[in-house]
Amino acid sequence: MARDATGIVAGQGALPRLLAAHLADTGRPGVVAALPGVAAEGFAGLPVLAARYEKLGRLFADLRGQGVGRVVLAGAIDRPALDPRALDLTTMRAAPRVMRALRQGDDALLRVVVGLVEEAGFAVIGAHELMPALVLASGPAGRHRPAAADMEDIARAEAILDALGQADLGQAAVVAGGLCLGVETVQGTDALLAFVAATEARHRRGGRGVLVKRPKPGQELRVDMPAIGPDTVAGAARAGLAGIAVAAGGVTVLDRAATVAAADAAGLFLWATDPAP
Amino acid sequence: MARDATGIVAGQGALPRLLAAHLADTGRPGVVAALPGVAAEGFAGLPVLAARYEKLGRLFADLRGQGVGRVVLAGAIDRPALDPRALDLTTMRAAPRVMRALRQGDDALLRVVVGLVEEAGFAVIGAHELMPALVLASGPAGRHRPAAADMEDIARAEAILDALGQADLGQAAVVAGGLCLGVETVQGTDALLAFVAATEARHRRGGRGVLVKRPKPGQELRVDMPAIGPDTVAGAARAGLAGIAVAAGGVTVLDRAATVAAADAAGLFLWATDPAP
Repeated sequence: MARDATGIVAGQGALPRLLAAHLADTGRPGVVAALPGVAAEGFAGLPVLAARYEKLGRLFADLRGQGVGRVVLAGAIDRPALDPRALDLTTMRAAPRVMRALRQGDDALLRVVVGLVEEAGFAVIGAHELMPALVLASGPAGRHRPAAADMEDIARAEAILDALGQADLGQAAVVAGGLCLGVETVQGTDALLAFVAATEARHRRGGRGVLVKRPKPGQELRVDMPAIGPDTVAGAARAGLAGIAVAAGGVTVLDRAATVAAADAAGLFLWATDPAP
Repeated sequence: MARDATGIVAGQGALPRLLAAHLADTGRPGVVAALPGVAAEGFAGLPVLAARYEKLGRLFADLRGQGVGRVVLAGAIDRPALDPRALDLTTMRAAPRVMRALRQGDDALLRVVVGLVEEAGFAVIGAHELMPALVLASGPAGRHRPAAADMEDIARAEAILDALGQADLGQAAVVAGGLCLGVETVQGTDALLAFVAATEARHRRGGRGVLVKRPKPGQELRVDMPAIGPDTVAGAARAGLAGIAVAAGGVTVLDRAATVAAADAAGLFLWATDPAP
């Protein structure tokens, strides 16, 4: 049997359904494996399997049975509560590695999960490989463009993120007039922008400021790409920023049409920078 | 005439008056030069001159006339509004350097100010050189001590600050259970702690977390030392942290008795780490 179907292992959020719609629209075969807590509806008519972490062997066999050769892991995954009595052999064999990774953090856990799927004979691809329109090409997206002062702020934010990357930290930073107004920590980009909106007024010396978001060095982009969306634009507007710069090809834009429209309406630029040479 | 008096160039805040009281208590001669906006009262009976930025030549001559040989620059300084018609020759000669530094940022400005005072024939000393009790020796100050997990969080925060130092950023960071919950930006430590208090709950995996504060690499400690005080302890307590770690000899503790008492009462450790070897 040909294994030309794409399997979407679906966590929380809009992305899995967006990918399902994209497969359906482009007439390609696909199967959805809905993780616990994910409703089976809204997947553009694709077949939906109920996936359980305790039964990875069953999940892999079902996907193979549906002709799946490549898998996209999409959407947010909560740390699951497992029923230890229900583990199948594949999950049981994986358990020690998963337990070790759980202690090491999210990055380690994702690498283990990718490894398990690959060992089961599937190719793991990123959502942006299935649907290239999820990421931006370098240059402007939307009507507005960064001014020279904004480009300086972008460069300063990138230098800060370069430094933070050495400590395995930092997907985003806000810089205005050369001053750093905030660095993203585990609370995420929306919390960073709310902090800037609440605190920056008396520190902004000139320039409106920019949000720069990009992957950390070595980040596993197939399963863990930074993302922005309409909420990011709204948060940046509330923080009084001039715009948002992301790494070309390295940041998912959720609901691209709405994101660009929101930036255009708010007078913000949305700009994709080339990767460092 | 002997120039054995200490001149306190006094900006805003409690530190200048603390230094004046320390000079008076230890029976050493001192003179205060109160910058614009600083009330002339509360300087423990020391003579108080009114300093104007426009009249630096006059200020230096007055200090020399009072037998001042060394100068402490203490307290916060707002960026002053100058009356260009009132400049004396010394200020006029310094103006181009000051203007350039103003564009480069606070660090550059402080270096120029130190240079001007030194060129006028004074030694510039740090507040902690006049009053060593302003900084902590390594080890615990107060009743509580960091647990092993706290020491790991301290080490992680120091690694993050090491990385940030390369981008000339970062006097403080909060880490809990290995996760970074916040990095200090231009808004300061109190804003950082308020951010952590408001956002961290669902991200704290284990460990209560620590605030680590220390100078940036190359920071001019004579005139720009990081500081903590009772407010820092209150903010750390509101953020649910286990304690505060500072660089031994590198962070001013404002109102030490009250700061240690607040940490003891709140169950927080106050710990001074040795400088990196």
